[in-house]
Amino acid sequence: MFERYDLAKTIDDKAFNRAIPDLRETLGRLQRSCRDEGVPFVIVIEGWNASGITHVTGEIVRAIDPRGYNLYATGRPTDVEQAHHFLWRFFIQIPAKGRIAIFARSWYSRALAEQIGGINLKQAVKQATSAIRIFERQLVDDGAVVLKFFLHISKEEQKKRLLERELDKLTGWMITRGDWDFHNQYDSYLPVIEQFIDETDTGDAPWKVVEATDPRYATFTTLTQINKALQKRLSGKELPRDNNKNTNGVKKKYPGLIADLKKTVPKPEYTPLLKQYQDRVKEAQYILYKRKIPLIIVFEGWDAAGKGGNIMRLIGTMNPRGYEVVPVSRANEEELAHHHLWRFYLKFPKNGHITVFDRSWYGRVLVERIEGFCREDEWRRAYREINEMEENFLSDGGGIVKFWLEIDRDEQLARFRQRIEDPGKQWKITEEDWRNREKWDLYREAVEEMVAKTSTSTAPWTIIESDDKYYSRLKTLKTVINYTDTLL
Amino acid sequence: MFERYDLAKTIDDKAFNRAIPDLRETLGRLQRSCRDEGVPFVIVIEGWNASGITHVTGEIVRAIDPRGYNLYATGRPTDVEQAHHFLWRFFIQIPAKGRIAIFARSWYSRALAEQIGGINLKQAVKQATSAIRIFERQLVDDGAVVLKFFLHISKEEQKKRLLERELDKLTGWMITRGDWDFHNQYDSYLPVIEQFIDETDTGDAPWKVVEATDPRYATFTTLTQINKALQKRLSGKELPRDNNKNTNGVKKKYPGLIADLKKTVPKPEYTPLLKQYQDRVKEAQYILYKRKIPLIIVFEGWDAAGKGGNIMRLIGTMNPRGYEVVPVSRANEEELAHHHLWRFYLKFPKNGHITVFDRSWYGRVLVERIEGFCREDEWRRAYREINEMEENFLSDGGGIVKFWLEIDRDEQLARFRQRIEDPGKQWKITEEDWRNREKWDLYREAVEEMVAKTSTSTAPWTIIESDDKYYSRLKTLKTVINYTDTLL
Repeated sequence: MFERYDLAKTIDDKAFNRAIPDLRETLGRLQRSCRDEGVPFVIVIEGWNASGITHVTGEIVRAIDPRGYNLYATGRPTDVEQAHHFLWRFFIQIPAKGRIAIFARSWYSRALAEQIGGINLKQAVKQATSAIRIFERQLVDDGAVVLKFFLHISKEEQKKRLLERELDKLTGWMITRGDWDFHNQYDSYLPVIEQFIDETDTGDAPWKVVEATDPRYATFTTLTQINKALQKRLSGKELPRDNNKNTNGVKKKYPGLIADLKKTVPKPEYTPLLKQYQDRVKEAQYILYKRKIPLIIVFEGWDAAGKGGNIMRLIGTMNPRGYEVVPVSRANEEELAHHHLWRFYLKFPKNGHITVFDRSWYGRVLVERIEGFCREDEWRRAYREINEMEENFLSDGGGIVKFWLEIDRDEQLARFRQRIEDPGKQWKITEEDWRNREKWDLYREAVEEMVAKTSTSTAPWTIIESDDKYYSRLKTLKTVINYTDTLL
Repeated sequence: MFERYDLAKTIDDKAFNRAIPDLRETLGRLQRSCRDEGVPFVIVIEGWNASGITHVTGEIVRAIDPRGYNLYATGRPTDVEQAHHFLWRFFIQIPAKGRIAIFARSWYSRALAEQIGGINLKQAVKQATSAIRIFERQLVDDGAVVLKFFLHISKEEQKKRLLERELDKLTGWMITRGDWDFHNQYDSYLPVIEQFIDETDTGDAPWKVVEATDPRYATFTTLTQINKALQKRLSGKELPRDNNKNTNGVKKKYPGLIADLKKTVPKPEYTPLLKQYQDRVKEAQYILYKRKIPLIIVFEGWDAAGKGGNIMRLIGTMNPRGYEVVPVSRANEEELAHHHLWRFYLKFPKNGHITVFDRSWYGRVLVERIEGFCREDEWRRAYREINEMEENFLSDGGGIVKFWLEIDRDEQLARFRQRIEDPGKQWKITEEDWRNREKWDLYREAVEEMVAKTSTSTAPWTIIESDDKYYSRLKTLKTVINYTDTLL
C-alpha cells in the first residue's frame, strides 16, 4: 500500500503562504459550526517517529479557538491508565458534543506498543483492530466525525531527522536508544502498519495517509482534509447514519423472567448463612485484589425491590479501600453531552478493585427508553454497544455480575406504603416512584427484552427473587461467591 | 501528649450493640441534612499502622447513603499526582457542597512519608504544617466542617496485630518489610506525630485522638464525635465564621496602574523581533520541560485588549504537547458547588508543563465582585486565598507570570466597532461586552485593588500597555522570556 505514495510531494512557498490563512480561518469557522450543531469531532494524528506529528498537531490547534478543543498527547500510559483496558484512557477522552478531541498519537500507537507481540504479528493486529473498530464505530454511531491521519516518511528521511534532532541542543536529550531501535526496524514495521491501516480504514472512520517529507505539504494536506470532511458533514451532504428511523415494526415478544417469588428463607437460617457468605465475599475481595482482577457488579431491579439493602449486605465486610458503590441517576449536563457510556467508563474499576453499580448503563434500555429520554434508534443500538463494552472488559481479564431484583407488583405497593408510614424511610419514596409504578407493564416488556438481548454467555443476568428479603440477599451473595470462584 | 490517653479503654458488647444502630441512623440522617443545607464535610482518618483505619472507615461509610460521600483511600501518589504539589491531589478531592469526603489516611501520612526527612525533623514538621494549616483553613472559610481522627494504639498492640495479619492467609502477603521497619521506629515517630497533631489541632479543624485498642470503642467514639460535630453545625449552634459581614467601611483608594499607552512598535521592527522572541520562548519551553519546572501564565485584561492575539503569539512556536490554553468563563454547576479555586487546581500544570489561563481565578475579585456573583466577604477573602495558592505553587518549584492587558476606554470602543463591522469577528462580541463596558469605573477600581493586593514579590503583576498590539505582544513575550531566564 505504502509504495503508491509519492514521498517527494511538496508544495511551493507561494502556494502554501497563499493557502494557509484561508485554511486556518475556515477551520476556525467550521469549529464554531460544529459547536453550534453539537457535532463531536475526533482527529487522530499518527505517523512514523519524527514524521512531524507534533508540528502538524500544532498547526491544527493554533487554527482553533482554545475553547473548542482538547489535545490529548498520547504517551506511555500513567499507572492509573495501565490498570484499565488499553482503550479505556481514550474512551474517557472522547469529545463532548460540539467539541474537537485531537489525539497526537492514539490507540493505534499504543496497540502497537502494548498489545501486539509474539510470533504471529498478523494475527495480533487482527485482534487489536477488532476492539478498535468497535470503539470507532460506537463514536460514529453517536454522531461523531472521526478522521485519521498517518504521516508517512521514508526510512532515509527518518534517519536524517533523527540525526538532526540528536544534534540540536534543545532536542538532543529526547532522542533515545529506543528511537534508533525503532528506526532500524522500519522495514519490519512497514507491513504491520499497512495491515493495521488497511483493517481500520472504514467508511465511518477513514484513514488518510499523508506524504510528510515536506512539513508544509503535510500541514496543507491535513488542514485541507479536515476542512473538507467538516464541510461535507456540516453542509448536510454527509449525514450521520439515519439514526432517527424507528426500526420497530412488529413487536417481538421476549420470554418472561423465570422467578419463583414464593421462595423464602426463615430468619434463623438466614442469620448464620449471611455471616458465612459475607466472610466468603470478604475473602474473595482479598484474592481479587491480590490477583489484580477488576470486578463489576450491576444492580438493577424494580423500585423498592431491595437494591440498597442487598448492596449493604454485599459490602458489609468488604475492605472499603477496594470497592466503590456508584449510585446512578439521571445524567447531568456534561454527561448528556457525551456518549451515553462515557460516564460509566469513568467509574470502571481498576485492576483488583470492585465497583458496585446501583443502577447502571442499562438505564438506557429501561428508564430512558420508557420515558423517551433518548430516541428509539438510540436505545435499540444500546444493546449491542453494551454487549461490546462488557465483552471488552471481560476480554481484558475482568469479571461482571449482573442482578435483576424481581418483585411482585403487589409486594411493591406494600413496600411503598410501609415507607410512607415510617418517618425514617419517607425520604426514600418520591413522586417518581409512583409514576414508574403506573408504567409497570411497559417496564416489564423492557426488562424482558433487556435480559434476552444482553444475557451473553460470559455476562449473563441473574434474576434475584426478592419478595423475601432474606432469600434475596443470600442469593445475591451466593451468586457473587460462585462467580468469583470461577474467576480465581 | 499521647501519654494522657488510656489505651485500655473499651466498650462492652451490650452497650456497643445498643448504641450502634442509633449512631448509624443518626449519621445517615445528618448526612441528608448536610446535603439539604449544602454543607461540605471532610473526615480524616489517620492513625498508626494496623490501628484499624480501614475498619473504622468501613463503619462510617456503611452508615451513609453511597450517594452522599466519596471515599479517598490515600496511598502512594500516582505518577500524575507525583508531578504536582503534595497537597494538589487532596485539593482536587475536596467535597462539593452537601457532600462528605472521607480520607482514609490523608495529607498527614503523605507529609510524613514524602515531605519530612533530613536531620531537623521538628523544623521539617513545622514547614509541612504551615501549608496544611492554610489548606484546612481555606476549606473551613468556604463553609466546610473538617474533623480529624487519629487512631492510637501502643507499640505492643501494633506488634500483635501485624503478627496476626502476617499469619492470616488473606492478609499475610500485604505485610511488608516496610511495615516492620515502621513498627521498629514507633518510639521515634511518636514525638513527631505528637508535634504534627499539636500544630494542626486548630479550632477550625480539630483533632480527636481515639484510643483504638478496642476496635468497637474506636468505632463508637468516632461515630459519636462525627454526629456531635454535625449536630452542632446543623443546629446552628456552631455557625461558620460570620462570613456575611461586610468588612467594607471606608473605601480605600489604591494606586492607579502605571501604563504609558502611547508606547508603540512599528511593524518593520515588530516582525523580526516577534520571530526572535518566539524562538526564545520555544527554547524556554524545552528547558522547562527538561528540568520538570511547571509554569503558569495568567492573562487578564479589558475586553478586546488583545488577550487572544497575545496568547496566539505566545504559543505560536511552542510544542503543543507541553502546553495547554485554559479559557475561563463562568463556573458551571459542579464548579459552583466547590471551593472557588477548585476548578483551577484541576487545570494546574504538572511538572515541566505550561498552562496559559485566558482569564483565571482573578475573576473572583473582578467580574464576580462587580456582578455580585459572590458575597463581599467572599471576594475580600479571595486575595489572601489566591496569594496562598500561588505561594504554594511557587514554593514547590513552579513559576507564575501574570499579565494585565491595559487599554484606553476609547480604544476599546474603537475595537468593539471594528469587530461589529467585520463579519469574521462579529462572533467575538456579545451583549455582555457592552454591559461590562458600562461598568468601566467599577472594574478600574477592582483592578487597582487586585494588582495592589496580589502583586507579591514572587508573583508580581506585569501591566502590558496594549493600545498598540505590536508593543503589547512583544512586551508579553519578553516578560515570559526574562522570567523563565530567572527560573533556569
